[in-house]
Amino acid sequence: MKTLTYAQQHQARFLAELKEFLRIPSISTLPEHRPDVERAALWLQERLLEAGFPTARLIATAGHPVVYAEWIVASNAPTVLIYGHYDVQPPDPLELWQTPPFEPTIVGDDIFARGAADDKGQLYAHVKALECYSRTVGAPPLNVKCMFEGEEEIGSPNLAPFIREHAELLAADVAVVSDTHILGKDMPSIIYALRGLVAVEVEVRGPEQDLHSGIYGGAVHNPIHALCEMISRLHDSNGRVTVPGFYDAVRDLSPEERAELARVPFDREAWLREAGVQSEWGDPDYTIIERTTARPTLDVNGIWGGYTQAGTKTVLPATAHAKISIRLVPDQDPQKIAQRLKDYLLRIAPPTVRVAVTCFTGTRGIVVSREGPAMQAASQAYTEAFGRQPVFMRAGGSIPVVTMFHELLGIETVLLGFGLPDDRLHAPNEKFHLPNFYRGIETIIRFMAILGQQTDPPGRV
Amino acid sequence: MKTLTYAQQHQARFLAELKEFLRIPSISTLPEHRPDVERAALWLQERLLEAGFPTARLIATAGHPVVYAEWIVASNAPTVLIYGHYDVQPPDPLELWQTPPFEPTIVGDDIFARGAADDKGQLYAHVKALECYSRTVGAPPLNVKCMFEGEEEIGSPNLAPFIREHAELLAADVAVVSDTHILGKDMPSIIYALRGLVAVEVEVRGPEQDLHSGIYGGAVHNPIHALCEMISRLHDSNGRVTVPGFYDAVRDLSPEERAELARVPFDREAWLREAGVQSEWGDPDYTIIERTTARPTLDVNGIWGGYTQAGTKTVLPATAHAKISIRLVPDQDPQKIAQRLKDYLLRIAPPTVRVAVTCFTGTRGIVVSREGPAMQAASQAYTEAFGRQPVFMRAGGSIPVVTMFHELLGIETVLLGFGLPDDRLHAPNEKFHLPNFYRGIETIIRFMAILGQQTDPPGRV
Repeated sequence: MKTLTYAQQHQARFLAELKEFLRIPSISTLPEHRPDVERAALWLQERLLEAGFPTARLIATAGHPVVYAEWIVASNAPTVLIYGHYDVQPPDPLELWQTPPFEPTIVGDDIFARGAADDKGQLYAHVKALECYSRTVGAPPLNVKCMFEGEEEIGSPNLAPFIREHAELLAADVAVVSDTHILGKDMPSIIYALRGLVAVEVEVRGPEQDLHSGIYGGAVHNPIHALCEMISRLHDSNGRVTVPGFYDAVRDLSPEERAELARVPFDREAWLREAGVQSEWGDPDYTIIERTTARPTLDVNGIWGGYTQAGTKTVLPATAHAKISIRLVPDQDPQKIAQRLKDYLLRIAPPTVRVAVTCFTGTRGIVVSREGPAMQAASQAYTEAFGRQPVFMRAGGSIPVVTMFHELLGIETVLLGFGLPDDRLHAPNEKFHLPNFYRGIETIIRFMAILGQQTDPPGRV
Repeated sequence: MKTLTYAQQHQARFLAELKEFLRIPSISTLPEHRPDVERAALWLQERLLEAGFPTARLIATAGHPVVYAEWIVASNAPTVLIYGHYDVQPPDPLELWQTPPFEPTIVGDDIFARGAADDKGQLYAHVKALECYSRTVGAPPLNVKCMFEGEEEIGSPNLAPFIREHAELLAADVAVVSDTHILGKDMPSIIYALRGLVAVEVEVRGPEQDLHSGIYGGAVHNPIHALCEMISRLHDSNGRVTVPGFYDAVRDLSPEERAELARVPFDREAWLREAGVQSEWGDPDYTIIERTTARPTLDVNGIWGGYTQAGTKTVLPATAHAKISIRLVPDQDPQKIAQRLKDYLLRIAPPTVRVAVTCFTGTRGIVVSREGPAMQAASQAYTEAFGRQPVFMRAGGSIPVVTMFHELLGIETVLLGFGLPDDRLHAPNEKFHLPNFYRGIETIIRFMAILGQQTDPPGRV
């Protein structure tokens, strides 16, 4: 296949261009780097046009622009929507970098720079895969739309409005996001499920104002005590969540899926080391991987009340607060679960305090069918490019853009990641494994070729 | 008794002098008021000499000076050590004062000014009582030593070293402190017991660093959960402390003492209003007054862990902390009780986290015999001056100087207070009830007369 040959022959130039991209300090959170973010967007637009896209433009948002490009080859061909982000995290703490964060440096098989893996290297693999098609067969084997945002590292504040406003422009059969990692450099993997998230904040009010604990302690219920009592009743002694109805909508894992998840290589000792704990915790009926990816969980993310500075102050505080978040599996409705937590907290609240619970909007968990054509195409492409069949796995966190595509465009997303677990995202000495850059380009070329053979109408991919 | 007649005849001048004292903004915590604190000390030294003290001087400390005066009338007479403080709290928030805080203003029977009741008015009653003796009979009826400090409002950081260093100079049979309030303007009361205090800080460590709750939640024990579980096990459902051995050294209240405490006027509705709660809490075997003054209590004064700013952050924090303090009754050893709490916390700590408990030095609770001659003298003096027998009561808090006198000089303290519950100490519109100023002078004159009739050797007063 000459497209693949072209890719191999031009690796050196692709790398040189990636270095140019990495030299632009497009730090979205720092106002003084606003011109750099803009420069990265313009640079990317030019590369998309050079790669053969008939059209590429910047679309303004309330923040940094979206770089949009499309290449429609046939009205009956499937359409893939590629998402990536050209902004990066700040490099601090600078003193911990062994090479300058914005002077990409190659050491062995790795390129070190801020944004190397997150997400410039992975994004640019798509641009180069398209160039390979353009220069060898004149066009990609399916319709391609690219949406590259510049605000992922600040929480994509303008992305949902953008997608909503441009839903027609962005219409596609499937989305592809290359912003995750695979299990190892020779061990491809595909995340097919993400957990959802919903959060609440609890306020326990005791006395109207802070009291002297020497004068009122023992006769006025301390809201910190009440809050701790309530939090201690959110899990049983096995780490199962005790909120009534919490597990009602949770589908049991099928024996097949448990077997599939058991195939994910897992080194308990290494996991304990990474987590920085002596022993694991939680529901003994499930493996650590199942607990953290396939089961819903509840964590208190923050707690505060009373005097928290140095020394002592004998206060009986007026209030105590906690922030609680729940990771949801698919089929759990975020608002329903938040309401159940709220109801339970209000029910177990001692009558001697007043409790208020605020529920925040949540996002649902997502599962993509492993049998769909795009997932199968991804699986086959990985197998051919990496010489090994990918492992299907679930992830414990959420990826907001996947939820947006699901909710706003009604499409599923294939997470076609090329990073590695030790890429040090958001940390000093971020790197990208160069063989994964080249194999990534190859995987994308193969994925498009396989998917392009589908001529089904939209919605069937 | 001509001393009392003199006191009545010179009330107008005493008040004028008190106003002068109150005009000095001797705010010990603000460095810019250092000259004012010094001025207050010098002013007080002059008034003591004018009142007839043969000697009065400033003794330097690492902070503000102590004003010391003594009047030894006979080697076989009892010696009383009078304590007070000439420094005051800052007046903020200024906008809530109805009259300028350092321009004493008389409205009805009250004088409004910062420091009016806490403690300049009460302190100055002693100076004037001594003047009454000096100008009528030439000398007080017992030996008098005055120790007036200028750092009470910043926690008396130099007082214990001062007392230790000048133990011989300060040697006395009994101490008198007028820095508390009585139950009502026609309802004198004597506090005969103070609770002690000991504090610990608890640190619960989970993972080595903060983790992503989406990646590790459900398989790593959250230290906030562990801390809340532990705190929820410090009280039973009746509000009794569950630390083993916590009540071992606590003497049962005698029926007589319970009857005496039941005589303390108590309006439950007013108490709930003051506390700002709908209902009381705690050990149902004891009255609210008993719970807050005669029983030991445990309060979490502060708790913190994880993310506590606005919005949400899905963190599984590395640590969670709590500050805990215990109010002790006499016979409870502070370090022993702190150690029992520590042992218990370490025992109930889940094995999935590491717990460290730091114990701070504590102070013992104090009970002064109601039958001792000084207490009886105080009781009789109040009865004669206020026309009503005082109620004996316990206080829930601690007064550090009382503990210092007990531990460093080996003497008991009579709390001869003349403030009222609504004097607004430390708050805007602090006031002192002028009839209490004059009755205070009378009470002190009578107290000294009664106690002066004792010719017992030191230690028997």
